[in-house]
Amino acid sequence: MIKNIGIITSGGDSPGMNAAIKTIVNYSNNNNINCYGIKYGYEGLIKGNFKKLSNFIVNNILSFGGTILGTSRSEKFKTKIGRKKAYNNIIKNKIDGLIVIGGDGTFTGAKKLYKEYKVPIIGIPGTIDNDIYGTDYTIGYDTSLNTIINNIEKIKDTAYSNNKLFIIEVMGKGLGFLALNSGISIGALDIFIPNNKKYNLKNIYNILKNWNINKYSNIIIVAENKKIGDSAKTIYKLIKQKFKNIDIRYNILGHVQRGGSPTYFDRILAINFGLESIKNLIKLKTNIVIGINNNKIIHIPFNESIKKKKKKFDKNIINIYDNIY
Amino acid sequence: MIKNIGIITSGGDSPGMNAAIKTIVNYSNNNNINCYGIKYGYEGLIKGNFKKLSNFIVNNILSFGGTILGTSRSEKFKTKIGRKKAYNNIIKNKIDGLIVIGGDGTFTGAKKLYKEYKVPIIGIPGTIDNDIYGTDYTIGYDTSLNTIINNIEKIKDTAYSNNKLFIIEVMGKGLGFLALNSGISIGALDIFIPNNKKYNLKNIYNILKNWNINKYSNIIIVAENKKIGDSAKTIYKLIKQKFKNIDIRYNILGHVQRGGSPTYFDRILAINFGLESIKNLIKLKTNIVIGINNNKIIHIPFNESIKKKKKKFDKNIINIYDNIY
Amino acid sequence: MIKNIGIITSGGDSPGMNAAIKTIVNYSNNNNINCYGIKYGYEGLIKGNFKKLSNFIVNNILSFGGTILGTSRSEKFKTKIGRKKAYNNIIKNKIDGLIVIGGDGTFTGAKKLYKEYKVPIIGIPGTIDNDIYGTDYTIGYDTSLNTIINNIEKIKDTAYSNNKLFIIEVMGKGLGFLALNSGISIGALDIFIPNNKKYNLKNIYNILKNWNINKYSNIIIVAENKKIGDSAKTIYKLIKQKFKNIDIRYNILGHVQRGGSPTYFDRILAINFGLESIKNLIKLKTNIVIGINNNKIIHIPFNESIKKKKKKFDKNIINIYDNIY
Amino acid sequence: MIKNIGIITSGGDSPGMNAAIKTIVNYSNNNNINCYGIKYGYEGLIKGNFKKLSNFIVNNILSFGGTILGTSRSEKFKTKIGRKKAYNNIIKNKIDGLIVIGGDGTFTGAKKLYKEYKVPIIGIPGTIDNDIYGTDYTIGYDTSLNTIINNIEKIKDTAYSNNKLFIIEVMGKGLGFLALNSGISIGALDIFIPNNKKYNLKNIYNILKNWNINKYSNIIIVAENKKIGDSAKTIYKLIKQKFKNIDIRYNILGHVQRGGSPTYFDRILAINFGLESIKNLIKLKTNIVIGINNNKIIHIPFNESIKKKKKKFDKNIINIYDNIY
Repeated sequence: MIKNIGIITSGGDSPGMNAAIKTIVNYSNNNNINCYGIKYGYEGLIKGNFKKLSNFIVNNILSFGGTILGTSRSEKFKTKIGRKKAYNNIIKNKIDGLIVIGGDGTFTGAKKLYKEYKVPIIGIPGTIDNDIYGTDYTIGYDTSLNTIINNIEKIKDTAYSNNKLFIIEVMGKGLGFLALNSGISIGALDIFIPNNKKYNLKNIYNILKNWNINKYSNIIIVAENKKIGDSAKTIYKLIKQKFKNIDIRYNILGHVQRGGSPTYFDRILAINFGLESIKNLIKLKTNIVIGINNNKIIHIPFNESIKKKKKKFDKNIINIYDNIY
Repeated sequence: MIKNIGIITSGGDSPGMNAAIKTIVNYSNNNNINCYGIKYGYEGLIKGNFKKLSNFIVNNILSFGGTILGTSRSEKFKTKIGRKKAYNNIIKNKIDGLIVIGGDGTFTGAKKLYKEYKVPIIGIPGTIDNDIYGTDYTIGYDTSLNTIINNIEKIKDTAYSNNKLFIIEVMGKGLGFLALNSGISIGALDIFIPNNKKYNLKNIYNILKNWNINKYSNIIIVAENKKIGDSAKTIYKLIKQKFKNIDIRYNILGHVQRGGSPTYFDRILAINFGLESIKNLIKLKTNIVIGINNNKIIHIPFNESIKKKKKKFDKNIINIYDNIY
Repeated sequence: MIKNIGIITSGGDSPGMNAAIKTIVNYSNNNNINCYGIKYGYEGLIKGNFKKLSNFIVNNILSFGGTILGTSRSEKFKTKIGRKKAYNNIIKNKIDGLIVIGGDGTFTGAKKLYKEYKVPIIGIPGTIDNDIYGTDYTIGYDTSLNTIINNIEKIKDTAYSNNKLFIIEVMGKGLGFLALNSGISIGALDIFIPNNKKYNLKNIYNILKNWNINKYSNIIIVAENKKIGDSAKTIYKLIKQKFKNIDIRYNILGHVQRGGSPTYFDRILAINFGLESIKNLIKLKTNIVIGINNNKIIHIPFNESIKKKKKKFDKNIINIYDNIY
Repeated sequence: MIKNIGIITSGGDSPGMNAAIKTIVNYSNNNNINCYGIKYGYEGLIKGNFKKLSNFIVNNILSFGGTILGTSRSEKFKTKIGRKKAYNNIIKNKIDGLIVIGGDGTFTGAKKLYKEYKVPIIGIPGTIDNDIYGTDYTIGYDTSLNTIINNIEKIKDTAYSNNKLFIIEVMGKGLGFLALNSGISIGALDIFIPNNKKYNLKNIYNILKNWNINKYSNIIIVAENKKIGDSAKTIYKLIKQKFKNIDIRYNILGHVQRGGSPTYFDRILAINFGLESIKNLIKLKTNIVIGINNNKIIHIPFNESIKKKKKKFDKNIINIYDNIY
């Protein structure tokens, strides 16, 4: 029977993680289960950095960006020695199960811990990139999209006033969920995603031949590639070279995309995921990632959730892109 | 063959209507179809208030709240004489089909116009109340929820500082979508919906016996009933009477809930709905309302969309409510 | 010599109070002075509710609305017995001086405590109403104005779309700083302030004879009078009666005006006031309220700061009003 | 006597320019003066790109970012031939006076046009950089500061969660008004301004020896130098080299700092400046820049306003910096 559980946030933080934490803590405490926060991701598991979480501690965190537990990308946890230490701390603290919130790196670690030590674990997808296979949405994605569009609306004001064309790089590790979806929702002139052959420069050259601030959008969106800024600069140079008469600038939105108070959508998603995770952990239905598919809360085996490269764009979005761009 | 179409926004305005308008106008113009905006809802149809919409006119409207076409609740259109006049203007302006954006009142009117004069019409659900049967979401609902939670976060600051309990009335015509969903996403102490028997005062009296600002939420949400303010005042009086030692206030959020720049979610939904509506109008697949169900764009017969009273809450939300409240 | 100080926030909370608290705490701790937070205003002084404040505790509060110390309007502190108890706790905790943040009620209490027990006190004006005599600005006023205009911009969207005129009531206890300044900055059709004879209904009747949504503003601002909602309803009825053809609504913004993260202006003002207060408390230059006058930080005797009724509007604002309205 | 006037926005756009335009247009039209908008700065003057501005056109622009007139940095206007063409268009359109909104480049041009052709001109300082000599504030500065702090609050969430230190570059052409003031209002660990000797690396090295996410701020602010990104990268490398154990990132906020709906402060400032400019143009009290000094609206000779390098920081801010940093 589950008496003590641990919560970990790992990898990049995302808005809504605290809403999931609060839900798990409240449900645990209300069902006589002790809930421990493990600080700074798997690092805290290795170091034994545990903190008991009361309802009082989480009373106000629903609206906070980031994660009150801290997070990290642990190199040590990738080693057998690291995971051994982690397991020892789990035993020492009598932790009966873990809930880990993060992305595919987080779930890869979780999977290994389960395989090696049979620790019951449930994963919750928390990343602004929406790149977890099997779930339609991840916690933080909607907030990030809204931050992106609010910032781009500001840039549109100045682009329009100055008769300029802006190339804006958004996050998303080259997979392009943030780029494609934000681009459509701000009416971008075009959208470029490095790893996706579909979206190339063929059309933009034609569009730009007749580009005019009053008729067309003044924003081109590019998805971040391996290094921050590379995508924006590459597209910028290619276009600048061909269209010397157009006044072009580039802008890299950067880390503002990760923070901020979660939106309605991310709060509800996080509360849903949190509730499903703790209810299943109690029933010992574990070693799964919680997801949402066509509005239904689902369970995804760890293995499947990790194959991020296959995740496809929403058909509706592709339909819009094909009809408008 | 469709040569000229008209767009109407009717009933209460909602954020995202302009994104739907822009999509329809762009797609029409790019496919050699003339697009006319009809001003102030069905009133404009009766008065012959038509305006041709170019891509230039709609270039910047994606981010605007409200509707550039204006809207109204037309009493005249409820009469046969009113609809006859409307039809005459449709003939006079050679309009081959209409797209109407609004709520159930709008669709009731549309249905009659089709029945009496065989005007091809497609409806798009645009209302912050999310009370259209057959579609999971309506345009404006997500923006309204975010406006509500952002404003309530401000009230929470002051409630917490002053050790007060706030009863906050949100819109939604008593059906309670805005109340239930915003309430959960801000961690309300309880949520009251006049027309829903499930949510009554039985629990709140128990909770309030031990109420304490540091342990519990300081917000109770109520859904608007027939008259603005009635719900808030009723609940306020009932609680105030029983708990004289608790410092209680009530607050009616009011019309701020209708306006503002649309969120990501509402923009994408509106673009999706707009695109589906114009593509189907061209194919003369009409007399339907466009909707979304489990992430799929669907077609709802007018008759079905109007029976708003049956629309049920999202199961996930009910699950959260039953487990947390 | 000052060894231990206490900080109190009293009366209505306002955004920026936490920025002042943080500044005082940091400066105290960095100068080897112990800093105690006294909870829930003068009530905490009477009850002996003191909490030592470290730099760690205040590390993140700069951006928080409300006050981490809590606040109240203490009836007991208005009595001699209440103040006697308060003084006993000051002695018991070896508090050498107090900094109180609040409005004129707060300073009235502070003045009495000084008079009766010679407790060194410095006041900081913190109220959204900007009704403290002697200082151009109070902490929270700028944030409140921005909250008001952001909410009214949302209402303008819907008013414009629906061809309606809105009467919006803002806070400010009838003195009208929030009403006059927000009204001008959103381009109100007219502004009504109950206690100010200058702004009456004489002009609005003339304007409304030709009122038209496309030419004129759709917003009338009224300042709250003694009871929330009274001003809005009174003006609403008077206008509604005379102009039956205009679709008019009223809206009461309510407590959202008090909360939220402080703006730049309020943060800087609060940091300035906080720094000046602690530096002067250390020098025992006390029994003053800190203020700002024409960009200079000034000291206002308690007596003067309390005469709120005399405070005049900014000449520039009056000039705008007289030239535009 | 003034019958026809022209308005120009020139240089970088800034939030609030439209509020000034609206005020000038309304006042002109209400006093039987024709008001012409000249498109894209001095370029429009050279090309004869004039558009008559009615009250209807400016009815809704108070809240819009950017400038509806467009702006540019005109190279042609720096030449005698360019200004000759401009003058010819002024004569041709019977323009009796100009109001130009912009920065020191704008006023340098204005001064020459006056000197060479005696065209009555009044300048309004509109720039987010606040680098105009003689005025305490420029239009757009307050909005930009609020955009900066709102975006940095988001970055703080993620910096805190990830135990990272962020170096954030803000605009301001190396003069540092935005850097110093935003830095203080978000509680930066330190603030660097390339052209200001006072703020160097001497202290930051000491602070960082004991840096700890729970005790100290996680943000360092740097002012943009000649090229976007240079300041951030320079400071980043210097610190990174010395403190290899600290996880440091840099972020360049970019053009989001220029756009968005103006804050209360910028609206009132713009309305004030607009009103003063048109009233003085009518009285032919011209060849001045409107400014604000210690809350009083003042007139600054063109010559003086251009010497931007001398402008000093607000004493209060320096006082805070010296006491806290």
